[in-house]
Amino acid sequence: MAKRISEAEKQREATDQGLKQLGSLVYDQINQGEFPWVMMQSRSIDNIQYDPHVRQYILGDRMIKRHSRNIKHIRPFTQLVWTAWFARELVRQRKTSTLREAYYSARGQRDIEYTDQQESDNIITDLEVALNKAREDFGIFPEERSAIFGDITIEYTVPGYEGRRTNLTDHPDGIMVGPAVTSSEFIETTANKILVVEKGAMFTRLVEEQAHKKFNAILIHTAGQSPRSTRSIIHRLNKDWGMPVYIFTDGDPWGVHIAQVICSGSANAAHLRGLTTPDAQWIGVWASDIIDYKLPTENLTEFDKKRLTELQADPRYSEDPWKEQIELFIKIQKKAELEAFSRYGLTYIVDKYLPEKIAAATAS
Amino acid sequence: MAKRISEAEKQREATDQGLKQLGSLVYDQINQGEFPWVMMQSRSIDNIQYDPHVRQYILGDRMIKRHSRNIKHIRPFTQLVWTAWFARELVRQRKTSTLREAYYSARGQRDIEYTDQQESDNIITDLEVALNKAREDFGIFPEERSAIFGDITIEYTVPGYEGRRTNLTDHPDGIMVGPAVTSSEFIETTANKILVVEKGAMFTRLVEEQAHKKFNAILIHTAGQSPRSTRSIIHRLNKDWGMPVYIFTDGDPWGVHIAQVICSGSANAAHLRGLTTPDAQWIGVWASDIIDYKLPTENLTEFDKKRLTELQADPRYSEDPWKEQIELFIKIQKKAELEAFSRYGLTYIVDKYLPEKIAAATAS
Repeated sequence: MAKRISEAEKQREATDQGLKQLGSLVYDQINQGEFPWVMMQSRSIDNIQYDPHVRQYILGDRMIKRHSRNIKHIRPFTQLVWTAWFARELVRQRKTSTLREAYYSARGQRDIEYTDQQESDNIITDLEVALNKAREDFGIFPEERSAIFGDITIEYTVPGYEGRRTNLTDHPDGIMVGPAVTSSEFIETTANKILVVEKGAMFTRLVEEQAHKKFNAILIHTAGQSPRSTRSIIHRLNKDWGMPVYIFTDGDPWGVHIAQVICSGSANAAHLRGLTTPDAQWIGVWASDIIDYKLPTENLTEFDKKRLTELQADPRYSEDPWKEQIELFIKIQKKAELEAFSRYGLTYIVDKYLPEKIAAATAS
Repeated sequence: MAKRISEAEKQREATDQGLKQLGSLVYDQINQGEFPWVMMQSRSIDNIQYDPHVRQYILGDRMIKRHSRNIKHIRPFTQLVWTAWFARELVRQRKTSTLREAYYSARGQRDIEYTDQQESDNIITDLEVALNKAREDFGIFPEERSAIFGDITIEYTVPGYEGRRTNLTDHPDGIMVGPAVTSSEFIETTANKILVVEKGAMFTRLVEEQAHKKFNAILIHTAGQSPRSTRSIIHRLNKDWGMPVYIFTDGDPWGVHIAQVICSGSANAAHLRGLTTPDAQWIGVWASDIIDYKLPTENLTEFDKKRLTELQADPRYSEDPWKEQIELFIKIQKKAELEAFSRYGLTYIVDKYLPEKIAAATAS
C-alpha cells in the first residue's frame, strides 16, 4: 500500500512550491535583464472590505507591484525575498520559528535591515499575501499558546512524531496548542460540539467538572484573543466534522470581540481564508446574562465605553445577539467576568448556566 | 499489598487536618464563651528578612493575633474563617480553583464582603501563613500556565486520572503545568539536568532542536515570572533527584529577576518553604554574553535602569555572577533578548551558546 500522504504534508509541499515559484519568477526576471518585481494584492485600508457572503473581511481587487527598479521599493523588495528564503529554509528543514526569531534572523544577515520588529512582521504579512498562505504554513508561529482538551484522537506530523497518535484527554491540564497540534491530523472523536473559552481558569474548571463528557464537547482555551493557529483548528473541526461551536467569554467589549474574531476573523487577516467560523455562536456572557443571573459586576471604564461605540460602527455587529447585547452593555454600564458565576458555587456554570445557554443557542 | 499512599494524598490529608484544627480551635473558643481568635506570623515588611542560611526571605518571630473581639479585626477574621471553609471544600471535593474564583465565590456568600480581589488574595495569603501551607496545597492555583517537556514519567493523582502514568515527551508542543502536573508524582527519568527558559518561543526552539536529548535535560518554560507551582516542581526535581538547574532568560533586569526568584523566591512568599532552588544557576543571557557573542541589542529604558538600581540594593544580588553582570548591564546600557541568537541561525543557541554556558557553569 502506498504511504498515505497527510494533509499537513500536502500543505507543506504546496507551500514549498509557492516559494519556489516566487524565487523562479525573480530569477527569470533577472535572467531576462529585467529589474525583478512581485505582484500582490494591496493591503491598504481602502482595499479591505467586509464581505457578507463569506462573512469575513477580504482584500479587494487592487494590486500593487513591488518593483526593485523603484528606489522606494528596493528595501521592502529585498526584505521580501530574504523572508521568502527564510520561509523556504523553515519548510525544507521542517522547522518552526516565531515572528521575533524571524526578525532577529534577518538582523544577522548582511544587507537585510529592519528598523524594528513591526517592519519585519509587515513583510511576513506581505509574503502571506504573495503566496496566499498563512505564515503558519511556512512555519512562523505566534508565541501565545492556547490549549485543547477532549476526546479527539490526533496524529502528529512533525519530525520525530510522524504517525504518532494521541488522545487529547491524556493530560488533565490540557494539551498546549503549538506547531505540533496545529499541524496534526484529526483522526476520530466522539465529541459533537466545541466549547471555546477565553480564560485558562474557566478551561481548568471545565476540565475538572468533566464538561467534555457532560456536553460531549471538545474544550478549547484561547488565552485571550485567539491565536490564528487556534482559529484554524476551530475552523477545521467545524468544517470537517460539522461540529457546532459555542463561544463564551467575559461579559465585556473585549470578550465580545474575542468571540467575533473567531466567527469572522480580523481585518489584519483579510488576505487569508480558513481561519473563520461564521456559524460559531457567541453564547455569553451577555449583558442580559448579567441581569438574568444577577452576576457580580464591575462598572464599565471609559475605555470599555469607547470600545463598545467602536464595535457599534463595525458591520459585523449589525445583527443580534451582537447588536442588542452591545446596546444593553451600554445601557446597564456594567460588565462581568466568567468567574462571576462562582458566586453560586464553582460548578454552577457547568450545571446550570452552560446547559441553559447551549440549549437556547441550539433552539435559535 | 496495601495500597501505596501517594505523596499528593499525604499532602492533601495534612492540609485537611490543618484546616480541621483551625476550625476546631474557633469552635472550642466559642464553646468556652470566648471571642475566637487566630494566631499567625506577621507578614508586615519589618518582619520579613533575608536568611543567608536557607538562602531565601523568611518571616521573623513576630506574631499577630487576629481577634474577633477587636472591631477592626472582625472583618478579616470572618473572611479568614470563610476562606478556610472554602479551602476545606476544595480539599474535600478534590477540586481546584483560582484566586479570582475564590474572590467571586466569597461575593456570593451572605455577609462575606470584599472591597476588591486584592483583599481576597491577601486573606488567602493569611491562610497560607496560618496553616503553614502554600495555597496550591488547598487547591487555589494561579491562572498563568507554564510548560514542561522531557523524558520523565509522571503519575497523576487528580480524580479520574489516579495512577495513570505519562511520559512528558508525549506531546511535542509540551505539557502544560496546571493542577494535575503539579500534584503528580515523579516516577522515573533519564534526564540529569533541568533547563529553565522564560519564553515560549525558546521552549519550542529547544523542543524542536531536541535539546532534551542533546543535553539530557528536562525543559521547563516559565512563561515569564514563574508561577509558584512551577517553582515547586523545579525544587522537587532538584532536591529529590539532585538535578542541577540551569536558567536562561532575556538579558535584561527582568530576566535577571526571573532567574533570582527561581533560586531564592520572593518576599511575598517568605512564609513558604519548598519553592526555592538556591543552587540553581543563572547561565544567561548575561551582559557579558551581549559583548562576547556580539548580540543585537536594544538600549536600556529609564525603567530598566531604575530596576537595575533596585536590584543592586537587594542582598540576594551581592554575589557574582549577579553583581558583576548587573554592573555590566549598567555600564553598557544595553539589553538583549533570548531570540537575539537567531542572528547566527536558529540552531546556534542549542549548538553553540548553551553547551558553552552549561560547561562553564558546571566547571565553576
